[in-house]
Amino acid sequence: MSSSLDHFADRLAAAVRAKKTPLCVGLDPRWDQLPAQIRKRHGGDTLPSIARAYEEFCARVLDVVASQVAVVKPQSAFFEACGPRGMTALTRSLERARRVGLLSILDAKRNDIASTGAAYADAALAGVTWDGRTHPVWDADALTINPYLGRDAVEPFIDAARRSGRGIFVLVRTSNPGARQFQDLDCAGKPLYVHVAQAVGAWAGENQGKSGFGLVGAVIGATYPAELASLRQMLPNVFFLIPGYGEQGGGAKDVAGGFRADGLGAVVNSSRGIIFSFEPDDANWEAAVATAASKARADLALAAPGLA
Amino acid sequence: MSSSLDHFADRLAAAVRAKKTPLCVGLDPRWDQLPAQIRKRHGGDTLPSIARAYEEFCARVLDVVASQVAVVKPQSAFFEACGPRGMTALTRSLERARRVGLLSILDAKRNDIASTGAAYADAALAGVTWDGRTHPVWDADALTINPYLGRDAVEPFIDAARRSGRGIFVLVRTSNPGARQFQDLDCAGKPLYVHVAQAVGAWAGENQGKSGFGLVGAVIGATYPAELASLRQMLPNVFFLIPGYGEQGGGAKDVAGGFRADGLGAVVNSSRGIIFSFEPDDANWEAAVATAASKARADLALAAPGLA
Repeated sequence: MSSSLDHFADRLAAAVRAKKTPLCVGLDPRWDQLPAQIRKRHGGDTLPSIARAYEEFCARVLDVVASQVAVVKPQSAFFEACGPRGMTALTRSLERARRVGLLSILDAKRNDIASTGAAYADAALAGVTWDGRTHPVWDADALTINPYLGRDAVEPFIDAARRSGRGIFVLVRTSNPGARQFQDLDCAGKPLYVHVAQAVGAWAGENQGKSGFGLVGAVIGATYPAELASLRQMLPNVFFLIPGYGEQGGGAKDVAGGFRADGLGAVVNSSRGIIFSFEPDDANWEAAVATAASKARADLALAAPGLA
Repeated sequence: MSSSLDHFADRLAAAVRAKKTPLCVGLDPRWDQLPAQIRKRHGGDTLPSIARAYEEFCARVLDVVASQVAVVKPQSAFFEACGPRGMTALTRSLERARRVGLLSILDAKRNDIASTGAAYADAALAGVTWDGRTHPVWDADALTINPYLGRDAVEPFIDAARRSGRGIFVLVRTSNPGARQFQDLDCAGKPLYVHVAQAVGAWAGENQGKSGFGLVGAVIGATYPAELASLRQMLPNVFFLIPGYGEQGGGAKDVAGGFRADGLGAVVNSSRGIIFSFEPDDANWEAAVATAASKARADLALAAPGLA
């Protein structure tokens, strides 16, 4: 059993190997798609009631998928949209993920400079320290980061991750259609996202675990399979977080290029395709979630046969 | 008196003109710099106690500066670092800013794609709508945004701002020393930040108020005065938010290039230089804050004489 102070990439690699799947389940709760039974129980006329519904829904999803996957990715935006009580729901969902043996990647795409970046990093990962006491806040295993501000704004996140056995995933190539507008600009002979990718490769190389992977990973969309495969070659030490699989259009063959021969090197996120794989009035919705996760596992086994 | 549904840039221009200063006060609360009397009253052994201290501190700062400035900029990171109760403190600080007649720019540097971006935008600006009811969440007048994901990820923020008379400020050139790493890459003959600036100019042009300014603004650091002045020429319709003045090293002459001849076109943020312009055990700390704000106003009057 790995301790939470072991290197993040080692914990992630071990967990993926143990569960034999790169599947990551995205927790993106949306009020109008929740099971009707949960909506009824909590109402929905106030932000706190919606937050409580999200908390119950995520807890039940976590219990269903705990045996099937290694890692989950809560999307901060949907919890933030419920106000302070939403952040309580997020904290409790992150706690429950840990309790049921899952790693968590908090998808919040944060970044800022100097002590402000450090405040985000400590909140998400290491815990904040005042008067000599450290208080955990969100307490996720990893956090997504935006690179636009440059290295000195990524450094506080690397530092917090290093101190606490956590990790970060830096946006390199996002999954949206408009990603090309800036990320593909030809900058001194190569696209911007390749410059960012090379920086991520260097940061990962400076912070490697025994697995050979660094605690700095990269976000690379399944919707750009050619870029994904070429980045896999360029960044042997970088773990990828691949969004855009499933509902956003990416399939197993699109993500296949993201893995090493041994099946390690990437986790592939699916949100709606798993957690909303039922009609709201389906009383058996948890069985539908379990089935959707199994199907995604089977599909991804074609992309990462090395894990079998 | 302007209504909160008027165009954001018109409200901002009118408020700056009425207060005759471009000064924006940054609300970046830090536990170890708070007045000793506030620390004593709230303790500091738990996250909620620190959040309550931040709330009191910000309320008192807002009351002091309300007559002196047009706009304040709470930094989300410091509130988030206190957990859910910190978000309550943030909400209440934003409410109080409005009550005392101040506009607010929530500095959270958010971004994400599609419906996730919309969740952030609705939470910060327009309010979230479920089952036909709209619930305000943070309810700021404007929000800072990161451009790395491209236009389709900025669009939900523009849309929310348009519906609600709010604004956004897109990171163009940040104030940190490492900003050059990616922002200055030569992309097809001009630096990346100029590509972003031109996109911001187009988005602003599509969403102009009667003042001629658009609801999409740009963040440009005081620490890069030459870039600031050239961007002012390039983007006549874009309101700038200028961080990096004061404690980060920018002075009045560094920001002078950010204004039009009439003194409009930019707000200049100072955080620590105003809200922590005293020793923690100074019982008269509010007088020190008022004095620091007056001094910054006088200094900035040299940069924007058109407002006098």
